[in-house]
Amino acid sequence: MKHLLSIEDLTATEIHQLLELTDHMAEINQRTIPKVPALRGKNVVSLFFEDSTRTRTSFDTAARRLSADTMNFAVSSSSVNKGESLRDTVETISAMGVDAFVVRHKSSGAPLQLTRWTKASVINAGDGWHQHPTQALLDCYTIRAGLNRRDGFDGLRIAIVGDIKHSRVARSDVQAFTALGAHVTLVAPPTLLPPSLDGWPVETSHDLDALVGGLDVLYLLRVQRERMDEALLPSLREYSTMYGLTPARAAALAPHALVMHPGPMNRGVEIAVDPAELPGSMILHQVANGVAVRMAVLFQLLGSGGDLRGEA
Amino acid sequence: MKHLLSIEDLTATEIHQLLELTDHMAEINQRTIPKVPALRGKNVVSLFFEDSTRTRTSFDTAARRLSADTMNFAVSSSSVNKGESLRDTVETISAMGVDAFVVRHKSSGAPLQLTRWTKASVINAGDGWHQHPTQALLDCYTIRAGLNRRDGFDGLRIAIVGDIKHSRVARSDVQAFTALGAHVTLVAPPTLLPPSLDGWPVETSHDLDALVGGLDVLYLLRVQRERMDEALLPSLREYSTMYGLTPARAAALAPHALVMHPGPMNRGVEIAVDPAELPGSMILHQVANGVAVRMAVLFQLLGSGGDLRGEA
Amino acid sequence: MKHLLSIEDLTATEIHQLLELTDHMAEINQRTIPKVPALRGKNVVSLFFEDSTRTRTSFDTAARRLSADTMNFAVSSSSVNKGESLRDTVETISAMGVDAFVVRHKSSGAPLQLTRWTKASVINAGDGWHQHPTQALLDCYTIRAGLNRRDGFDGLRIAIVGDIKHSRVARSDVQAFTALGAHVTLVAPPTLLPPSLDGWPVETSHDLDALVGGLDVLYLLRVQRERMDEALLPSLREYSTMYGLTPARAAALAPHALVMHPGPMNRGVEIAVDPAELPGSMILHQVANGVAVRMAVLFQLLGSGGDLRGEA
Repeated sequence: MKHLLSIEDLTATEIHQLLELTDHMAEINQRTIPKVPALRGKNVVSLFFEDSTRTRTSFDTAARRLSADTMNFAVSSSSVNKGESLRDTVETISAMGVDAFVVRHKSSGAPLQLTRWTKASVINAGDGWHQHPTQALLDCYTIRAGLNRRDGFDGLRIAIVGDIKHSRVARSDVQAFTALGAHVTLVAPPTLLPPSLDGWPVETSHDLDALVGGLDVLYLLRVQRERMDEALLPSLREYSTMYGLTPARAAALAPHALVMHPGPMNRGVEIAVDPAELPGSMILHQVANGVAVRMAVLFQLLGSGGDLRGEA
Repeated sequence: MKHLLSIEDLTATEIHQLLELTDHMAEINQRTIPKVPALRGKNVVSLFFEDSTRTRTSFDTAARRLSADTMNFAVSSSSVNKGESLRDTVETISAMGVDAFVVRHKSSGAPLQLTRWTKASVINAGDGWHQHPTQALLDCYTIRAGLNRRDGFDGLRIAIVGDIKHSRVARSDVQAFTALGAHVTLVAPPTLLPPSLDGWPVETSHDLDALVGGLDVLYLLRVQRERMDEALLPSLREYSTMYGLTPARAAALAPHALVMHPGPMNRGVEIAVDPAELPGSMILHQVANGVAVRMAVLFQLLGSGGDLRGEA
Repeated sequence: MKHLLSIEDLTATEIHQLLELTDHMAEINQRTIPKVPALRGKNVVSLFFEDSTRTRTSFDTAARRLSADTMNFAVSSSSVNKGESLRDTVETISAMGVDAFVVRHKSSGAPLQLTRWTKASVINAGDGWHQHPTQALLDCYTIRAGLNRRDGFDGLRIAIVGDIKHSRVARSDVQAFTALGAHVTLVAPPTLLPPSLDGWPVETSHDLDALVGGLDVLYLLRVQRERMDEALLPSLREYSTMYGLTPARAAALAPHALVMHPGPMNRGVEIAVDPAELPGSMILHQVANGVAVRMAVLFQLLGSGGDLRGEA
């Protein structure tokens, strides 16, 4: 494993192995000094062409807990603004000595392109509507821990609700959840489903209320307000009524069911209850697990058997 | 001591103890390698909703001298801009593993709010017109060292001059200086005094010249140019004539008197002499002491008896 | 050697010594863990008043490989925007404990000014049209390695092509290359040569084709698009035809000849071939060598004989 570009590149066994490695990382994060020297001297560069403090910080934190050095390139301050091509930027930074690039870009496939221009490992931190593989891994880890399902997701019923069409999170989660055996239903207004679902091993529904009581996991996607400008959504209020987690739906959930969201939430829209009041809310666990999963990915790609035991 | 929100929360004894701890930190800062492992693995996050390179850098430097990891969140690049609430932002960052938040916010009380949303320690780095407790502590430390007053400020005569009304520095300094026994006079145009000074253990004056010769400390506040737009100040020139440190007033100071300013200075306005020419100018000492005081605060909140001796 | 302000301040012997020290640093950069404790506890502050991710990152990487701490001040977020003078900013940051300032500023001589306001070492990372000494050193190192010229550049024929007039790179390179014995020809349209070349130990030419076959090094400068707005350049297309590295000129180069560029490149303008296809292209080597040279400079200024051997 040299890069992490897409969940599609991983077998179910490889996903399981990454989740087991994540267990080690979660244990490190519980220590008084949550830091190991495993990636000392490695240079992890985040190259974010879209703003995302949340994901960037999670990777940064992960890298530093493994004692790697980190550098951040926000596109706004880089030579890309002086007309330099993405390729020249990547080759230049790479020449300074980079072990891994963590890339977010609005174009699907940009991380794959990068692998042609650098000898460093490339980790996709979100490309267009395409993939966000570490989000899918952290979501798997959260379900695995939350429902105590170390051996797989056979028989689990998961609904992913919202703007499936434009969501790299949905695309990645569907692949990961089904690879581990879950049964996934996509719930969305017709305008927010992809034009074709050929080859997606899922069912679809427009009726969340019919499903909600039988779910093990309710996964809510963020509503992008620009979808209204594009006339794909009538109003936030109507969206919330039809597809949001309202108090009535929260009451209809099974007691063991998990509620998940990739963040940041639009309170009052896709989630109209206070998640702090929901016993099954995994939303902050997802954030915490994100650090551990990213530690596992970085260690898998760069670690070559380095030390996870000693103190940094 | 879990948080540092306000000078009001500290007893005189606690202030003295922090200043003694600051002595240790100042000693570390004199070493060839000014770094100790005391806070290794701790994560100190600055969350600045107002720009302040100066204060943020001082905290960053302090944290790194204690071997803590640091992360900076400027609001401009955070999810708060995507409509996420302050609470969700804080809970999310917190879930990644934070030991202390250093917060600056334009609203009085925002740091206190934060303590309800995180298990991390919260340090107020300035909230509205309310408090800036580490500034007050570094000012106390500077006076204590500059006038050799380790046992307290009994009998010291301190004037704080300028825009008292809108100044969290003035508010915090008054509480700290008087807690240690000083006699404080506020000198300002009537428009820049708070509407009521009930409960402030101070005197006021509009006549700096009458006071200046008897002062041990002359503390000048920064004039905000927006006060002129609000018609609270007639002109910078008139302000400088009435309340600025002019050459004549500098000559009238006692030889031992200290001149202080929280920075950044408006040269030619509140200070119309070159501070480099003033023997009593403590302005750069305040900056240097700021690092040591913030080390003491971080260590007090997070250190649990950690190692201040060994090399990092 | 306390500061590095200009190549003019260095003797040929001192340049040679820095290049030898760079050999050590390049060796460190080849290690599995490319990090030494040499500058542990030192604080290197970059103070960039012009944007340059490339140079700033190179210095940052260099400093961290020597285990120094780094801080970045971009002017846009600093108190200079609140009207504070450059001097007050520098004195303030300096008071927090700085060992070296790495400065970029649009005004020639700004780094020299800084040396009057701080006890820290000052490294010029580019000032106006004046100097960019670490670029010249990395260029020397690249030629020395690329042409195996450890003992000097006697007899080497180097052409520097492009906007000489506004180029601190050209100015610094001319001084360094000729100090080491090279024969330098400046090739440029008359509008982009300095008004006088008195005292420059160089020849000039407007005819690149007449020279190209006899060169050991072809050094291309970046064309600034604003030169067209200033009517100093007729068109990018005409510039490229007259002074660009076209396929025909690439074919006319001697087999051993090096092609260099300080970056970022304007592909299709000063370089109209793909540098990845040119066997003599040193462009990415320049970037890699930049880190090693800056390590050498930082170590020379701050290292006082520190440890280059042990692991960080």
